[in-house]
Amino acid sequence: MALIVQKYGGTSVGSVERMKNVARRVLATQKQGHDVAVVVSAMSGETNRLLDLVKQITDRPDDREVDVVVATGEQVSIGLVAIAIQTEGGKAKSFLGDQCRIVTDSTFSKARIKSIDADNIHKALKKGHIAVIAGFQGVDEEGNVTTLGRGGSDTTAVAIAAALKADACEIYTDVDGVYTTDPGICPAAKKLDKISYEEMLELASLGAKVLQIRSVELAMNYKVPLWVKSSFTDDPGTLCCEEDESMEDVVVSGVALDRNEAKISMLGIPDGPGIASKLFGALDEKAVVVDVIVMNPPREGKIDLTFTVGKADLIKATDVVKSLAKGLRATSVATSGEIAKVSIVGVGMRNHSGVAARMFKVLAKEGINLEAISTSEIRVSALIDAKYGELAVRTLHTEFGLDSKTPAKKKK
Amino acid sequence: MALIVQKYGGTSVGSVERMKNVARRVLATQKQGHDVAVVVSAMSGETNRLLDLVKQITDRPDDREVDVVVATGEQVSIGLVAIAIQTEGGKAKSFLGDQCRIVTDSTFSKARIKSIDADNIHKALKKGHIAVIAGFQGVDEEGNVTTLGRGGSDTTAVAIAAALKADACEIYTDVDGVYTTDPGICPAAKKLDKISYEEMLELASLGAKVLQIRSVELAMNYKVPLWVKSSFTDDPGTLCCEEDESMEDVVVSGVALDRNEAKISMLGIPDGPGIASKLFGALDEKAVVVDVIVMNPPREGKIDLTFTVGKADLIKATDVVKSLAKGLRATSVATSGEIAKVSIVGVGMRNHSGVAARMFKVLAKEGINLEAISTSEIRVSALIDAKYGELAVRTLHTEFGLDSKTPAKKKK
Repeated sequence: MALIVQKYGGTSVGSVERMKNVARRVLATQKQGHDVAVVVSAMSGETNRLLDLVKQITDRPDDREVDVVVATGEQVSIGLVAIAIQTEGGKAKSFLGDQCRIVTDSTFSKARIKSIDADNIHKALKKGHIAVIAGFQGVDEEGNVTTLGRGGSDTTAVAIAAALKADACEIYTDVDGVYTTDPGICPAAKKLDKISYEEMLELASLGAKVLQIRSVELAMNYKVPLWVKSSFTDDPGTLCCEEDESMEDVVVSGVALDRNEAKISMLGIPDGPGIASKLFGALDEKAVVVDVIVMNPPREGKIDLTFTVGKADLIKATDVVKSLAKGLRATSVATSGEIAKVSIVGVGMRNHSGVAARMFKVLAKEGINLEAISTSEIRVSALIDAKYGELAVRTLHTEFGLDSKTPAKKKK
Repeated sequence: MALIVQKYGGTSVGSVERMKNVARRVLATQKQGHDVAVVVSAMSGETNRLLDLVKQITDRPDDREVDVVVATGEQVSIGLVAIAIQTEGGKAKSFLGDQCRIVTDSTFSKARIKSIDADNIHKALKKGHIAVIAGFQGVDEEGNVTTLGRGGSDTTAVAIAAALKADACEIYTDVDGVYTTDPGICPAAKKLDKISYEEMLELASLGAKVLQIRSVELAMNYKVPLWVKSSFTDDPGTLCCEEDESMEDVVVSGVALDRNEAKISMLGIPDGPGIASKLFGALDEKAVVVDVIVMNPPREGKIDLTFTVGKADLIKATDVVKSLAKGLRATSVATSGEIAKVSIVGVGMRNHSGVAARMFKVLAKEGINLEAISTSEIRVSALIDAKYGELAVRTLHTEFGLDSKTPAKKKK
């Protein structure tokens, strides 16, 4: 007998009919002899409906009160899912963030979990109940309602699994697992049976929207075996877990494309100490997160600085750069939103040399120019012209032997 | 400077525009130098929308989980109203039932308030905040979400006013006060400036839907001055308060019509001990609430028993009566839903004799036959044929000098 935490997202509980489906799945797991805790999101569309009500009043609402409003989405879901389970003949009890003591800090709208007291949930499980837990929400130490930010229900599920010392945490979604790359771009993409936390982290931060990055970090820290499964099929899905030896045989596990960055360059800056610290200090003050940074060695006493930011921050970042350009005596500032970042990820890179070189070579062969490069121990990313994004993904997917032998069914 | 509790119902917060109107009214009260706590209901239609979601799953849901679902209606309202107040330039903080410690018993869907700890609200008021409190909901001693039943927000408002020792509790609604009778039936109805708690209780229990009966009881017990006002006009409204001498000069304060009862008669029962206790004991077991009871003295050793119940309970009550009729050797059972109960109410009755006789006489003059009579110290009710209901109200309204000199505007 195992203790299993299952998480169902907004699409999986998007209608009363789908909630009944969730109820049957949960009960089937319980009938196999397991204790089951279920974390649910708001019905799809509900969070946006609530935010829209707020927006009808003001564009600059108080975060505390917004959290009070949007936390109701998950509250409705847990009540309805508990009733659906009871209607299917099971026992169920719902838990708000407050009721299972998911205590967070007081950063409304993107709070971080500080502690969970799983006693109440354990008690309910012991009585044969299925615990139905509101995702996305918690309560701070003063008893204020908080929310964890978009996608926070994944984080709730992993945190609950860690607190309960669960045997597995299963994330049910509308895809049936983690793929080597986006099947919409590369029909030869194949589903992975297993992926390491580190790889998943790199893929999640590169824009693969299967799991929220914080939930993967949390799973890694607490060694929670994390499954990505479909709530509409019986496919075993993908297991995200600690690295094992077999994983290192594979050089590259996945290829990711991120089209959500923009590039800014400050050109012809007379070299001198403190240029980078001035620029990135100023960006940090404005809460602009910088990703790739490239600085060329000085040429004729002048340097070029290039970096990328999220597209949403482009205007803000450009303002900062322009305001500094004069003081730094830069000759010009250039920006571009027409870039893409293509990355290969794999724990096997640690033990295989020449992976980056092989990536650059095959891209060059296709006539794709690299505008900047950034690497980690298990990742190589290249900034390229946006129009080559899909071509680069398919080329790298084939080059590193990831192509499926059976052509993939088109995913919805 | 006074401390004022204001309550706004579902219609008053039925849209974002109306919430802004509430925000302006609340701030205007604060600007007069008062501390203000506001109790709000769910947006009109919201509670029914939520109950309908539940109904799509099952007709027999678990009450605990239904409360979790429907309590979200008020939660959305407090967040939005707090944001609306802030947007109008005020300070506001929202409170869930749990956050201002409205502790109730565990009778889900119709819980009773046991205690309120008003400390958090006092703290917010002291900082110049308007406290925006969720009506209708509380939390039991185990931390489960509970609701107080339909119209429970009035009860929340009065209970909060009592706990805060407020100077007044103002119930804002879509009518501008308490009337001598339903203006829809009797155009000569006039608004009362003042009414005693006792009279309001009799009128509330007779089907005048202005205030929930429990809220009036609570106001009476804690001597909370209770105003009924319109959220759309500046009319001073009606004050519901302790009886004073001037009130006793008026014999009849109001006339009420209740068309929601049905009549059951068990005829020709051989007289003997314990008949009434058998019958009403059996009805009580089935949770049928009986209102008027009439038992004729035995004629030829046989008695007739007639009583009324809410129309919704007619079938259940008839089943009980029929199952007992054989054992009691009754000759027949008769039922009718075509009855109305017309009542006159007034604390002045205590000091004026002959009020009931005057009522019966004037009804007889109009050819209205009385099927049963029931009285309290400050009320006389008569059961009549349903078709004479409106006529009886108008006749009594005129007879007891309640007619307005200026013809009433038709209320919506």
